[in-house]
This record gives sequence, C-alpha cells and structure tokens, in this order.
Amino acid sequence: MEIAVLLYDNFTALDCIGPYEVLSRIPAVDLKFVALKRGTVKSDTRMLGIEATHSIDEVPAPDILLVPGGPGDDAAAAEPRITAWLAKAHETTKWTTSVCTGSLILGAAGILKGLDATTHWAAYERLAATGATPVAERWVRRGKVITAAGVSAGIDMGIYLLGEEVSEDFAQMIQLAIEYDPQPPFEAGSPATAPAHIKGMVEAFFAAQA
Amino acid sequence: MEIAVLLYDNFTALDCIGPYEVLSRIPAVDLKFVALKRGTVKSDTRMLGIEATHSIDEVPAPDILLVPGGPGDDAAAAEPRITAWLAKAHETTKWTTSVCTGSLILGAAGILKGLDATTHWAAYERLAATGATPVAERWVRRGKVITAAGVSAGIDMGIYLLGEEVSEDFAQMIQLAIEYDPQPPFEAGSPATAPAHIKGMVEAFFAAQA
Repeated sequence: MEIAVLLYDNFTALDCIGPYEVLSRIPAVDLKFVALKRGTVKSDTRMLGIEATHSIDEVPAPDILLVPGGPGDDAAAAEPRITAWLAKAHETTKWTTSVCTGSLILGAAGILKGLDATTHWAAYERLAATGATPVAERWVRRGKVITAAGVSAGIDMGIYLLGEEVSEDFAQMIQLAIEYDPQPPFEAGSPATAPAHIKGMVEAFFAAQA
Repeated sequence: MEIAVLLYDNFTALDCIGPYEVLSRIPAVDLKFVALKRGTVKSDTRMLGIEATHSIDEVPAPDILLVPGGPGDDAAAAEPRITAWLAKAHETTKWTTSVCTGSLILGAAGILKGLDATTHWAAYERLAATGATPVAERWVRRGKVITAAGVSAGIDMGIYLLGEEVSEDFAQMIQLAIEYDPQPPFEAGSPATAPAHIKGMVEAFFAAQA
C-alpha cells in the first residue's frame, strides 16, 4: 500500500498531518511526502518545513492520493505538472482524497467533474467552479473519491478511510491510540454553530492573508 | 511572542502540528521548531521529517514551550541537554506546555513535581513516576503549566491557550478557520468509551512498537 501526500508551497500543515497520523499506521504502508522536487516545503505560516522525500515523478501510481489545502492552492492548481500528475495517478488509485481546499486542486485536475464533493466552508463557490457539486458535510465519499471539509476534517476522514481500507476495529484502535476524543473548548467549529461576528472575523482574517 | 516547539527523534507529529496550527496564528508570533541541532528530525513513523530551523541553544528563553510526545520520549527525557534546556527555559516562560507523553519529558526536567498533570491514557504510571499527579482530563492547567492528553488533545489545548493568551473571540475565530467541528466516525477515542477489545488491541500495538 503506497500513499502519496502532496506538498506544495504554502500548504496548510494540519490538512495533511491529521490524515498522515492515522493512515501511516496501516500495516506495511509506504507513505511518501511528495512535491514537484525533493526538499523542504514550507507551510503557509513559513515557520514549518516538511521534507518531500520524493518528487511526484518518482511516485507515479500511488494506491492512495492525499492532497491538502492551503493558501497555495491556486498556485498548485495552476501548475500543469501537478494537475497532470494527479489526473494520471487518479486513473489507478484505490482512493483519491483531499482535505480542505485540496479539493480545488483535484478539481483543477478534472477529477471532480459532476461529483458531489466538499472543501473548506469558505470555498464552496470555488469548488463549484471546478464542476463539482459542493456538499456541506464533514467528508464526502463518491466511489473512490473522498473529499474532507476544512483543515481538521482530515482526521475524521482518515479514520473513516482506515475503517474502509483495513477494518472498523483497526480504525477504532488508531482512534484510541491517538486519544481522539475531541473536546473543543468552544462551539465555534462550523459556520452553523459559530457566533455571526466570529464568522465575519474569519472572513476578514482570510482576506488579510490573500 | 516567541514559541519553541521541541522536536526529537521519534516524536509523534500530530502532537505538535495540532497546537502549531492554532498557536502559529497568534498575531506577530515567532514560532520556531527547535531540536538538539538544526536539521530534519524524523517522526515515529520514519516517513515524515520536519525541519528544526534552530538549535535549542539558539532559543534559550521562549515565551511558550511546547513539548510533543512519542516513542522517542524516553530517549529525550534521558538527554541532559534537553532537560537542562527545558528547566532553564521554564524559569522565564509565560506558558510551559506538553501534549501526550511530552509531559514525561517535562517531568524529567523536574517541572511537574507536585503538580496535577496529564498525558496519554496509557502513560499515567510513567507520569506519576516523575512526581506529578495524573489527572484523566483532556488538558490540565496548573498555573502556567498546561499538559494535554494523547496526540489529538493538543488541538483542544491549543485553542484553550489562544483563549487565555489572546482572547476568546480570537480562539473561536481560529477554531472556525480550521473548521474544528470534530465528527469522529466511531466512539472509540477514550478508554472510557472504546470497546474493551479495542483497548487491548492498542496495548498490543504499543507493545509491538516499543
């Protein structure tokens, strides 16, 4: 079982480290962080660098594709070497997955045309522009394509995928191993539950980053 | 505001990337991944490398200390350069924090003597051996010391810390920005809720890794 986790400049780290933490526990898995070229790739804060141990050309046919989101999503989606690699790899994957605005990059590769999919709650319109139908769920599976909602949703999606790929017992074992018994101190994790002024603050925060 | 996130060989990635993802959003923060020496540090799966941009000697007095756990905890706790750095830095921190068995490393530095603290649910006895009183909570704050439970608990602790350090509005803004509206597909995240045979599987899984 080979997993390729795509890195690109300005990715959001938790998008990929959440699912990595659980998917890397699949027995005999070979999980590789890949990028256009080998070397350290900087996250969106510029304070974190993760090592891409392989170039995408070196991993042409992974069993699982995982694409994180982040402020670098547009640039990654506009890079033909990335979208060509995704489109080709997707032909033979067992699972093609994304977290947050990683789905926009899958969409740019033509993978989501006509499919239900999800993304960060603030990016539904951009997702629709790729030909997908945005769905406000924590993760959306259609066939072998699983797209997760914003950032932290990759943990939930990763545990679900363990249940499908290995077994529900294994998925629960890993959930307990990472003590995933979430107790957020506030009820602000979704636009449906967050106070209205908090949603406005997030929109201003994202606008300032763009 | 300077934050030092300690890396050491065989750390568990989500332990530090969870809190990193939220704490790195503090306005004007300078968050540094530090290790005994600069360079790539491999996580417990050996499939992920994070760049330590600074040595611990270069960051002697951070405002916030964050120590992740992982199978390398014993070796880190036995490294006198690490424990001396932690003990000294702790004298002037605003917050001293850990996730999972990172508390055992704080404990080895003498920081938890006589304090209530927490760690991964499977490590309470080891925590008690450092002079702390283990408490089965998601995170435990005593003064400026905050210890979080296993792996994923660092996200909850990080958001709590944002609320204390910046404001509750800011904490909620970041919670919504990372869409932290957890929906685990199973109810297995705590030894109190997981089926008994799942707990046995985790203990065997950890024993096989040791």
